[in-house]
Formats: sequence, structure tokens, C-alpha cells
Amino acid sequence: MASLKNIVRINPNKIEIKLNGPPGTDHFIADNILHFSKKLKKEEPYNCTEKVYPLKIILTPKSNNPHLDLNTNESYTLEIIYEDDTITASINAYSIFGIRHGLETLFQLIIPYEDGNQKCIATLSYVYISDKPVYKHRGLLLDTGRNFLSVDTIKRHLDGMAASKLNVLHWHITDSQSFPLEVGRLPNMTKYGAYSEKHIYSESAIKDLLQYANRRGVRILPEIDAPSHAGNGWQWGEEAGLGNLAVCINRQPWRSFCIQPPCGQLNPTNQNLYSVLKDLYSHMRDHFPDTGMFHMGGDEVFIPCWNSTQEIIDYLRGKPLTTETFLDLWGEFQRKALAAYDRAFEHEDTSIVVWTSHITQPEVIRKYLSNERYIIQTWVPESNINLITELLKLEYRVIISTKDKWYLDHGFWGSTLYYNWKTVYENKMYKYNHEGILGGEVCMWGELVDDNNIDSRVWPRAAAAAERLWSNPRSTAEFAQYRFFAQRKRLVDLGIHAEALTPKWCVDSQGECKTYL
Amino acid sequence: MASLKNIVRINPNKIEIKLNGPPGTDHFIADNILHFSKKLKKEEPYNCTEKVYPLKIILTPKSNNPHLDLNTNESYTLEIIYEDDTITASINAYSIFGIRHGLETLFQLIIPYEDGNQKCIATLSYVYISDKPVYKHRGLLLDTGRNFLSVDTIKRHLDGMAASKLNVLHWHITDSQSFPLEVGRLPNMTKYGAYSEKHIYSESAIKDLLQYANRRGVRILPEIDAPSHAGNGWQWGEEAGLGNLAVCINRQPWRSFCIQPPCGQLNPTNQNLYSVLKDLYSHMRDHFPDTGMFHMGGDEVFIPCWNSTQEIIDYLRGKPLTTETFLDLWGEFQRKALAAYDRAFEHEDTSIVVWTSHITQPEVIRKYLSNERYIIQTWVPESNINLITELLKLEYRVIISTKDKWYLDHGFWGSTLYYNWKTVYENKMYKYNHEGILGGEVCMWGELVDDNNIDSRVWPRAAAAAERLWSNPRSTAEFAQYRFFAQRKRLVDLGIHAEALTPKWCVDSQGECKTYL
Repeated sequence: MASLKNIVRINPNKIEIKLNGPPGTDHFIADNILHFSKKLKKEEPYNCTEKVYPLKIILTPKSNNPHLDLNTNESYTLEIIYEDDTITASINAYSIFGIRHGLETLFQLIIPYEDGNQKCIATLSYVYISDKPVYKHRGLLLDTGRNFLSVDTIKRHLDGMAASKLNVLHWHITDSQSFPLEVGRLPNMTKYGAYSEKHIYSESAIKDLLQYANRRGVRILPEIDAPSHAGNGWQWGEEAGLGNLAVCINRQPWRSFCIQPPCGQLNPTNQNLYSVLKDLYSHMRDHFPDTGMFHMGGDEVFIPCWNSTQEIIDYLRGKPLTTETFLDLWGEFQRKALAAYDRAFEHEDTSIVVWTSHITQPEVIRKYLSNERYIIQTWVPESNINLITELLKLEYRVIISTKDKWYLDHGFWGSTLYYNWKTVYENKMYKYNHEGILGGEVCMWGELVDDNNIDSRVWPRAAAAAERLWSNPRSTAEFAQYRFFAQRKRLVDLGIHAEALTPKWCVDSQGECKTYL
Repeated sequence: MASLKNIVRINPNKIEIKLNGPPGTDHFIADNILHFSKKLKKEEPYNCTEKVYPLKIILTPKSNNPHLDLNTNESYTLEIIYEDDTITASINAYSIFGIRHGLETLFQLIIPYEDGNQKCIATLSYVYISDKPVYKHRGLLLDTGRNFLSVDTIKRHLDGMAASKLNVLHWHITDSQSFPLEVGRLPNMTKYGAYSEKHIYSESAIKDLLQYANRRGVRILPEIDAPSHAGNGWQWGEEAGLGNLAVCINRQPWRSFCIQPPCGQLNPTNQNLYSVLKDLYSHMRDHFPDTGMFHMGGDEVFIPCWNSTQEIIDYLRGKPLTTETFLDLWGEFQRKALAAYDRAFEHEDTSIVVWTSHITQPEVIRKYLSNERYIIQTWVPESNINLITELLKLEYRVIISTKDKWYLDHGFWGSTLYYNWKTVYENKMYKYNHEGILGGEVCMWGELVDDNNIDSRVWPRAAAAAERLWSNPRSTAEFAQYRFFAQRKRLVDLGIHAEALTPKWCVDSQGECKTYL
């Protein structure tokens, strides 16, 4: 803030909000105003004796549509004008979600302004911003299958996402370790699959969480990973007279039957499995908003599991036990799982996301997955850009999660490396823009995090990915550094235990720590 | 807990403590009993309907000496006997600190015991343990020079240290970035050196912290790093008519004058510096207990800083500006700083710890540092065992901080790697025991941590180092795994945001995740 003349001090006790829009947006707007006010109060104690001015905020959404999906218009304009001793901030947007983004930007433009011992808050005397995201799908993956995360922890992440304009929480709910999602129709899923009664997302908790996410402008993309990464929770088939719904569950030695303990893989040869999947998908239909998108996982099928299961070998009726045979079996599973989904939802146009795997290789993908129905989430390293190019050529839509930049669990196991915020920021996404690229996600796999340590693994790095996805700037992380330090402070003020990025001296002494860290 | 017959259930409402010892230990013991009881209450809700038995704890210290130093006898015996419907736990020790260790072990032996829906706590019906540490100096370094840590954060670490039987908090108080220690005699140190008024350790905070540490069985080893790693806080010499106490302060471009911004190095040629140091050391004498040990830092002197300062070149009166000349100057600083220390303390037998550096190289060390006065803290990689051997041959005492195993800041900057708990655990310390090895320290350098994220960087890894230092077992981390998972839970129960080590499934399913993570 070089020039005083461009700065106006705000009277935080005189903030007036006016809502100009169609009916039905009051709850959404009221909740966001409350959130905005709470954040503003986190700023330094206010003891400003200089002249301060009232701030009037005028919010004008065009639509009252409360549903978020891939095509929600998130653009907004923000104009700040100081005249006649009043500061007026006008936010115009098509959707209420655009309005929310505008409020977030306004909050970022209100900063502490110290003058001797006085602490004021101030903003610029004139601003005009017309803003919209480069990518529609800007996500963070949280994994509650490996380790449970409390609803409070998930909400804290939703706050961080909102502050960073991320709009998709990809929720990898279940895995072979546990099945924490309460499913009324299928109570055995948590009876067998939850770590304990305390480690369950009840239907009421889900309802609360979904509303909270919506208010923060975040759509939840649930993932029920299948046919691999499924084990605990699926043990009750025999007992219920349905046969084995899954095989290799908790089988040892685990290295022979899966890539990570405990083992488990759904049994594609058991036709009852598809009825159970339909029940599960019906539950998703009833308890999650239909955003037109669902994640079926579909990664890391471990052939030696199926290949060592007599029931599955019998089903294959003497076919050669080759990779191709098992890929066909997997394809059959995927076809039947999709049919179960479509029956549950009673429409056939949900976009199904799956991870890149053997079955999504360009040579075979068309045999198994329609490019109209499937979105491919790529997790290949940045160097393997060819795969993305091939998938785009085949007219698949893709979501990019560059493994060697955006996998937030790396650095703590095997020979993986930690990616600091600058590396995360400088992930190229792709060499050129292509409308088939819906966006990207940073992924916080859950093996080595729980409520105690997840915050600092995710934050502020996810905010670096957020800027990449929102504006995809040509400039470097070094250029964004001071803005990023400020964003880290905002996250800490939200109660997020975000990682420290540098000694405080470097935060306070802008420009004095060039090329350091 | 395989066999029920060896287990006795405890009535947590009937725990009686008897203190059998010399007078003067009541406060220490009472505080530790309170801490013990609080920790016990953190266990699962108690709804035991089985027969439970009272627990009588008899504490018998021989000495009432409240001072901790390198030679404190920390040994203890613990005997648990179940007879006549009472459980009696007797802890005998020479010192009250040994008693404290015994209580810690007793706490570890009281574990939740679930039987159907019942939750009880239980212990073994007979135990006899005679225990003492392999190494006398078992430390954790915290750094409050780069980023400030609140007193609460330091206390949380003291709790974790106590739970792990670490006994030295090496407090790297100051660095070139900031000087947060209030020094009544030298108010300019914090006036110029603290990040803000909120980022100061006041004399009363220090007093509180020191008592808290003592009660947790932890000795504080303060470090005032010099002559390098000193800058902010030392700017006031000219103004006070004392000349430049330090040079190169905040000088740019920083890469030319230091290894990390901001630059700064004490001015060894200014004789007033030594008076100021004497005042500083007098403050240490008055406000810290005299444990017979002090850390003077002494690492990473950056010759181009002194070599580009006219005042220093003038002082060298035409000597060739070679490394040797500057080493001699550094040696002169060290000799005069030690003299200032001895004058302040009025005795000449404090052991001074310094980091390995140019000046501690075996070829030159005897020229500059007496092996009677100096302890060398080695931070060379495990492969550089020769240096340790050489220093031991020269009859220096050493403290080992193996950089590529025990530097807890690694993995997040440059090409450093993260060391998981197994790597920390398996640090060899040294190929053979040698009485010159006092022990070791894990080091949490502060550039990338503050109150928000330090817990999970330190814990539970520091507990892995603690076992290495306490018992130096021949067995592997894999063998210690389940015991370590339990220790991690104890740390979490203390309010420490310790890192998750594995999926909860692997914690709950002992032995099922062999060789994983």
C-alpha cells in the first residue's frame, strides 16, 4: 500500500448489506454474510481513531438456483467506489455462487492498515474486477477410507476451499480398510466396515455436511471405489444368502493379493453384487444432491486376487487366464455397475469419473468405457502428458491430478518426494487449454493423516493449486509469494493449522528473501 | 493381552498414593500425580462392572534434590504386586526424576481392557522393572529464532518429552531473524529483535516454563547462537555509543553475506561486544538454573561477511585474508565470549556446547577449543562417523544429531528427504558405546514450522529417537511398531497433534500390515 490517497479506512461497525435479487437466496446469502463478518473480526484488534467510512455491500445475483454442478456460472464482477463519504462494494453475478466468490475477493481486499499504534482496516478507493474461473472443476480429494476424518475436520477444509475458490470436494469415502458411510438400506456396510460406532457418517451428519458445503460454494463429488479398494464392509454376503460380494478380504500374505493391506476386491461374478450396488447407488440418489457426476474409482484392480479365487476361475469357464480375460471381466463389472447406477437414478446421463488404470489405456478404453458417459481422472506424472493427449483425442473429458505435483500424501512414504507450495503452484496442468480438460484436483490420500495432522498437509498447498485452477497464471510462484503468505494467514485465521512457509521475518520483510525457500 | 489370569482390573476411583521420602519433594510429586491422573482420565469412558481392585502407588525417592543436570541419576525400579485384593505399585528411585520416569512406565502399563461392551482399565498382576537410560543427554531442539513458538506450544512439547522420557529441551532461542528473549539488562535486544510485543518470552513466562520443564523431568539447555546466526536484536550498538555489535545485518544480496536471510554476524573486533555478552550471560545466570551446561551455537560462520566489512579488515592489520586468519578471529571471539561467560557465572567449569563447524575440525579444534570445556554437538550425516571417532579420540565429549536421520525439518526444502519414524528409530547413534558420547538430540529447525504445524513434524518421531536414546535396542522399528502406535495415541491424548503413522486398520489389526509403511 504505497499511496495513501488510494486507500480508504473502513468503519467495521458500519457495514450494511443489501441484497438485490430474486427471492429464495436469503438463507444462502445470510450464511455467507455471517461467515464474511466472522472472518473480518479475526483481523487485528481495531483501535482506529482516523476518520473511517461506512461500507455498503450490494449483492445482485440474477438467479436463485441453489444447485451447484459442473456448469454453474461462477463469474462475478466487483466494483468498489468511494464517494460521498461512503464506500460501496457492488457484487454482480449470475449465480449465488458467483456472489459468494465476489464476497471472498472483497474480503481479500479489506486489509489491516497500521499507522503508528493505530490499527485500522482499509480498502482501495476504487476497484473494478470482472472475474471467472479458467477451469470448471477445481477440486480437493479427501480420503476417509484409510483414516476417518471428523465432520468438523471436513468442514474446516470446506472453509479453506471456499477461501481459495475451490469448488469440488472429491470425497473418497470408502476403501478396503473401512466403510464409514451409513447406508440405511444396507446396515451391514458399516456394521462390518466402520472402524467403530464413532467412525460413521450418519445420514444426519451427511445432510449437515452437504448443506455446509453448498453454502461454501463447494459441490461434493462422492466416490465409492470399486471393484478394487473395497473389502471391509463387504463381508456379509454369505451370511445374508447372497454369496461372496467381495473376495480376498483381509487375505494374507497381503503382498500377493493387493497393493496395500488389507486386501479386498468386489466379486464381479456374483450377480447379487449388482443388486447391492443398486441399493447403494439408490442411497446416494436419496442422500446426496444429483450433480450429474459420480466417482466410481476403478483403479488398481489387482489381478492375482481374482486369479486366485476359485469362484472367479470357474466363472471364466476355461478362458485363458490372461490379462485380457481379466480386463474383460473388469469391463463386465463396470458395465453392470453402470447399469445398476442408471437403474437407481432412473436416468442415463450421469457423468461417471474413473481413475486412469489398465482399463483406461488409450488402446483399450473405447472397448470398455463410453466417452459420453465417462470422465477420466488422470494421476500420471507430469512427464506422461501423452496419455492426456491421447484421451483428449479419443474425446474423453479429463480431470488432472498430476501425481508428482498434486499428490499431497507424497514425501512421507517409499521414495516419494514432498512437493512444496511452489511446486504445486507451478504444475502446468497441460501444455495448452483444451475444452476436454474440466479441471484438476489435489489429492490428500489418507494413509498418513487423520484429524490430528491433515490440516498442514493440505494447507496452504491446496490454495496454490486453487490459483492455478482459477486463473492459470503465466507468472511464477515467486511472483505470487507475498499474496500467498497473506492467504496462508487467512487460512490460519479460519482455524486451519496450515503449514508455515518461511520464517516470519521473510513474511514481514517483503522482497528481502528472494529465491529463498 | 493373551492370558486373562495375568491381568487385574483397576478401580480408577480408588487410586491411593503414598510418598515415602525425604521432605521437600511434595510439590514435585503432587504435580506429577496430578499429571498422571489427568492422563488416566483420557482413557476410554469407564463402565466396568467386573470386579475391580484398588491401586496403591508407593513412591520412594532417596534424594530430594530438585535440580536436574547431566549427572542426575534417572534410574528407577517399578514393582507391581497383586495380592489381598489390592494392587500395589512401588516405585523406588534415587532422584525424584527417577520416580517420575517410574510413574510414566506405570501409566504405560495401565491399559484399556475391553470385554464385550464393558470398558475397564487393567494392568499386569505382577511386574518387576529395573530401568535406567543408556544415554544421559536425550534431547529435542526447538528453534524460536526463525518463527516464534508460544509458551503453550513449548509446554505441549515438554509433555510429549516427559511421556517419552526425553530429558533435555535444547532451546535455540535466537537467530538472525529474531531475538525473542526479554533481557532486563539489555532491553534493546527485544526492542530491535522481537517480531512484535506479542513475540517475546518475558521473564515471568521463562520462570513458568522452567518450572514446568523441571516438573516434567526436562532440563532446558539454552542456546544463544554466536557469532553467526545473530543479527536482528543487535542493531543498537552505534546508537548506544558502543559501535557495531554486529555486522552485515539484513544486508543484501543476502546470498553474498550469509547462508539464509536475513544476514548478520557478531562483530568480534568490537571489545564492547564482550561486555554486552557478559550482560547477556549474567541474565542467563539469573533467570535460568545453572545446569553446568550452556550452548553457544558457533556454527556456519560465513567468512564473506567479515571479509567484506572494513572495520574487521582494519582490525586484522594487513594479515592475509585467508580462511586461517578468519578462523583465528573466530577463535578469538570464542575465547573472549567464554571469558565473558565465566566472569558472569563466577566459575570456570560450565560445559559449553558448540555445533560442528570449520572450527571443530579435528585438525584445528585443539587450537581453539579445550576438550575440558567444550562438548561438540555433531550434525554430520551417519556416513561421516569418522568425525565422531576423531573427536572422541581427541577426548571431546559429543552429542549426536545425525543430520540425515534426526533433522526433523528435512523433507520440506531443497533436496532434503523426510525421515519417517522407522528411520529415526533406526539411527545407529554410533557403532559402539563410548563414554564420551553423552547422548543425542532430534532437531526441529524452525524455518517451516510455527504453532500451527510443529506438533506433527516433531511427534511422534521424537518418541522414536527417545527410545533409541533411552534403551538403544538392538531390535528394529518393525518390532517396536505396535508399542509405537500406542505411544502415538498417548501423545494425541496429551493434546499433541501427532502425525498419523498408518491406516487405523493397521493399528487395530496387529501383525496384519507387516512390511507396510
